[in-house]
Amino acid sequence: MAEKFASRRNIDFLIKEVFDVVSLTGFEYFEDHDEETFKMILDTAMKISEEMMFPYFKDMDTQPPYWENGKVYVHQAMVPFLKEMGEGGWIQSEKPYDIGGQQLPLTIKELAYFLFGAANYSMHVYPMLTAGAANLIYEFGTQEMKDMYLEKMYSGVWQGTMALTEPDVGSSLGDLTTTAEPTDQGYYMMKGQKIFISAGNSNVVDNVIHLAIARLKDGPLGVPGISLFVVPEKRINENGELEDNDVQCGGIEHKLGYKGSPITQLNFGEEKNCRGWLVGEEGKGLAQMFKMMNEERINVGIGAISKISGAYYASLEYARERKQGRKPDQKDPSTPMVELIEHADIKRMLLFQKAVMEGSLSLATQVSLYQDLVTVGENRAENELLVDFLIPILKTYPSEMGVLATSAAIQILGGYGFCGDFPVEQYYRDIRIDPIHEGTTLVHGQDILNRKVSMKQGKAFELFVNEVEKTMAAAKECSELAKQLSALEKAVQLMKDLTADLLARKERLSREEFLADSVLYLEFMGLIAIAWQWIKMMHAAIAALNDQVSDQDKYFYQGKIYTGRYFFDYELIKIDSLAARLNSDDKVTVEISKEYFED
Amino acid sequence: MAEKFASRRNIDFLIKEVFDVVSLTGFEYFEDHDEETFKMILDTAMKISEEMMFPYFKDMDTQPPYWENGKVYVHQAMVPFLKEMGEGGWIQSEKPYDIGGQQLPLTIKELAYFLFGAANYSMHVYPMLTAGAANLIYEFGTQEMKDMYLEKMYSGVWQGTMALTEPDVGSSLGDLTTTAEPTDQGYYMMKGQKIFISAGNSNVVDNVIHLAIARLKDGPLGVPGISLFVVPEKRINENGELEDNDVQCGGIEHKLGYKGSPITQLNFGEEKNCRGWLVGEEGKGLAQMFKMMNEERINVGIGAISKISGAYYASLEYARERKQGRKPDQKDPSTPMVELIEHADIKRMLLFQKAVMEGSLSLATQVSLYQDLVTVGENRAENELLVDFLIPILKTYPSEMGVLATSAAIQILGGYGFCGDFPVEQYYRDIRIDPIHEGTTLVHGQDILNRKVSMKQGKAFELFVNEVEKTMAAAKECSELAKQLSALEKAVQLMKDLTADLLARKERLSREEFLADSVLYLEFMGLIAIAWQWIKMMHAAIAALNDQVSDQDKYFYQGKIYTGRYFFDYELIKIDSLAARLNSDDKVTVEISKEYFED
Repeated sequence: MAEKFASRRNIDFLIKEVFDVVSLTGFEYFEDHDEETFKMILDTAMKISEEMMFPYFKDMDTQPPYWENGKVYVHQAMVPFLKEMGEGGWIQSEKPYDIGGQQLPLTIKELAYFLFGAANYSMHVYPMLTAGAANLIYEFGTQEMKDMYLEKMYSGVWQGTMALTEPDVGSSLGDLTTTAEPTDQGYYMMKGQKIFISAGNSNVVDNVIHLAIARLKDGPLGVPGISLFVVPEKRINENGELEDNDVQCGGIEHKLGYKGSPITQLNFGEEKNCRGWLVGEEGKGLAQMFKMMNEERINVGIGAISKISGAYYASLEYARERKQGRKPDQKDPSTPMVELIEHADIKRMLLFQKAVMEGSLSLATQVSLYQDLVTVGENRAENELLVDFLIPILKTYPSEMGVLATSAAIQILGGYGFCGDFPVEQYYRDIRIDPIHEGTTLVHGQDILNRKVSMKQGKAFELFVNEVEKTMAAAKECSELAKQLSALEKAVQLMKDLTADLLARKERLSREEFLADSVLYLEFMGLIAIAWQWIKMMHAAIAALNDQVSDQDKYFYQGKIYTGRYFFDYELIKIDSLAARLNSDDKVTVEISKEYFED
Repeated sequence: MAEKFASRRNIDFLIKEVFDVVSLTGFEYFEDHDEETFKMILDTAMKISEEMMFPYFKDMDTQPPYWENGKVYVHQAMVPFLKEMGEGGWIQSEKPYDIGGQQLPLTIKELAYFLFGAANYSMHVYPMLTAGAANLIYEFGTQEMKDMYLEKMYSGVWQGTMALTEPDVGSSLGDLTTTAEPTDQGYYMMKGQKIFISAGNSNVVDNVIHLAIARLKDGPLGVPGISLFVVPEKRINENGELEDNDVQCGGIEHKLGYKGSPITQLNFGEEKNCRGWLVGEEGKGLAQMFKMMNEERINVGIGAISKISGAYYASLEYARERKQGRKPDQKDPSTPMVELIEHADIKRMLLFQKAVMEGSLSLATQVSLYQDLVTVGENRAENELLVDFLIPILKTYPSEMGVLATSAAIQILGGYGFCGDFPVEQYYRDIRIDPIHEGTTLVHGQDILNRKVSMKQGKAFELFVNEVEKTMAAAKECSELAKQLSALEKAVQLMKDLTADLLARKERLSREEFLADSVLYLEFMGLIAIAWQWIKMMHAAIAALNDQVSDQDKYFYQGKIYTGRYFFDYELIKIDSLAARLNSDDKVTVEISKEYFED
């Protein structure tokens, strides 16, 4: 079993040398924090990851939760872990003091979450999902709801879910059929089925609080008919006791990966006794849900990055230890074999993983930082637009590339990579959910091309371009970056031209034609965004090397510079082929009739 | 569970309309065959696939073989299947009549193997590996060996393996340590361990015949010290009885996929009583092994194609049945939802799978056909060079692209794709072995760039270019193909220039630098080769549409034309980015020190 799953050193590099996260403490909301508290929090996160999570990484895969008589039985390691999450305040750490939060920058919380995810993502999702559900109550719930639920959820005693998907409704949420019938008792009678609900039931918590979207009975069709409800597994009766709320767990899925976290099927109101309480306004269910979705999508992006990190370090460790073959110039069989890491193609596959992972983590830090500035009201409108614009990229790039990155980790181990004795095959399985949940890649492709690039008269796109250009201007001082800066300059110009052309074509194309390749456009944008982050990191590394540094630090910074070079030379280069396709007039995917797949 | 795993119709298209395989029957060796016997054989293969194999596809994954006290227990469905394989003559069907073969074109055999693989690859490998092992005895063994082993192996009563890999020796076979000590009894005493040996032990056959490479005790280091041996699990004693040959099965691997076939660890000579018999010449072990490897590599390429086929049809079936959302131009929630297959992005992902799968199958047919011409001595030298040149492409392109193709199949099913109730997640797991076994992608990358492009003074490369140009010249008559032909013409020119540049640079670069991106060169070559095959298929489809055809046929041919268009517009286009990288002078993967991965 590998020993390392993430780099603590790299997190310090991001928060101190690339982003100056500590400057946030200049804002009143964060003023009680300083570099030292950030360090303590991240060190604690690392310790929890190493001691309470990573040791169960494989166990939770081979001994997944099971369902018996309506109950889901989870791994016993969840008990101390949830206690730790609750007592340590990890679930609501970014929230205000008055509700028990620590007013921690989201940036720091997300980096801690990255460590948790790399150590054991299946374990990590339980509190992560609870945080998401609690956020909805915090933001839109009544005071009574907050009093009833938040403390129990924040303390990890109760769990939370977001219950959206239904058997016939995946991405097209407007078509959902779970109903809520109003009563004169202040609650609604819920009826319907939800599927794929992560951690929707568990034997180690007293109660699970579902934040479910449902259609008002006799309400309008489509999105306007959808409202948000809190549907507890057990409701509190007049005596303050928990009583059954007719939420049945009908089973769990046997899945490819991410096995430690049960994906449940939930039935509301099979005995006509399931009560839900409206959260926020009637008919605003989806809008409210999506308002809070950004953080969940950051979480999924980071979850993907964390799995790439785990696979990367496992394959790196193997490549360092395993000897095989000789360099191409050395064929004498009496010479000793060299470590795998001496081979250029192995280094190529390591660089690919490292470039995707660290580039994406830098982008995640960037987006979280914009979000923290929103929280404190600093250039709120602009920072909000930047978060909105970058979310589909941050959610998708590591999810899609993660399939390839974890596949590269397997390839480095060869036959052993295919075997359960090593962790890489599990990361490869675990990560495959990420391009699907919290919006499929297509949902995000359409989001960026159909909405984000043109929203507010293209203001978000413009702000993004400005941010990239600011980074390039600052990096101009490094002559070492001339080649990469010139490549990024050309890439940004191509992005501007391509986007303008696409939007111009929007007028004469059908919506279907316009959106047909939105997924490729999103891939294109991902490459630009990650290249931007690599300039930031290379710039910081070059600056650091101007000072006297230890050998260890020199290796670290050189690693950044070489990995950035790799990204530009092997990855960014793909934008030309993508742009060629995006500019093509052959609308073959729209034009082909479904009959033509017959034979 | 999906119902279809492969298209019989498409096989007819390949053998009749694209390749005229029946013309082989003009050669004496194949003269007893005709279109009708080919049809019968392929129909029978389809029937076996449907009735004896596909029903156990999921079962063999969820109830994989297990190891107990040195014995591997496999699924009971293997019993009638092996009987059928043996009685039907499927193992040696391409061999001459005099040893019980049917003198069937390899092309037909490989297409039947494609069907077997798509139905249940884990099941299919047992006879497939037996065929490979028997081939070595057939080609290099003594008459006594042939008499002793071949009939039992061909009849499926005994199984065969190729035993190469050792615990510390994967791709660098020259370093293996299993030893063979000569005796004066005509046999060698074997000692060592082999790992990752597919189907190396089984409770349903009487004996397993290992074709193992080993080092002659006190022989030279490296490749010259390696010889090939037949090492039966049970040897025949003086009384003609089977007796134990001290080949112990030490266990099987728990693996990501391909679970129905046990990957075994074998120990030779733990009790100093393991006998091996030299096959062919001392010191020629690797050369002999590789001489027979081409067919195994065709088999692995076809195995990958067959998994893509299974995943494609499963995702197609789902996309046709499942309704979700509406077209982008139609947002009225009162209108009915449309089938998934109506969405452009779903069609894009179907087209990707279909383009990779059918393009690769066409290439497999092409290569097998060249091999059949070698068998009958027709332009033997040229056809042998073409086979040699195309093998790394045929082995690698579907293996590497298959990871993405089966991933696309999962994406089409969304959350369901991640669940064990549908077969796509299994194909995604099963196919991950293909870029590893029978030579990793790096092995093949180095093979093509270091050897194949320049062998015989570049003759093989030249022959390949000629073949592509012949196809283009023939297709010039189709004005509908003007755009694709122009693209391929440019691509071929780029390939010639790029290859010449690389070879020119070879002089001034170290071998390590020259070979650093060989995997990308192989990817580049794969795109050209598949584009070539798509021109052939599009040309045939356009020709067919000139006649009166049924609606069903029209759909089929139109599907070919659209899929070809897809391939050129979305896939071939990637050569430009690949060429840009291959032409880059930044040797970052060579230059980065292993320390720079530290942190």
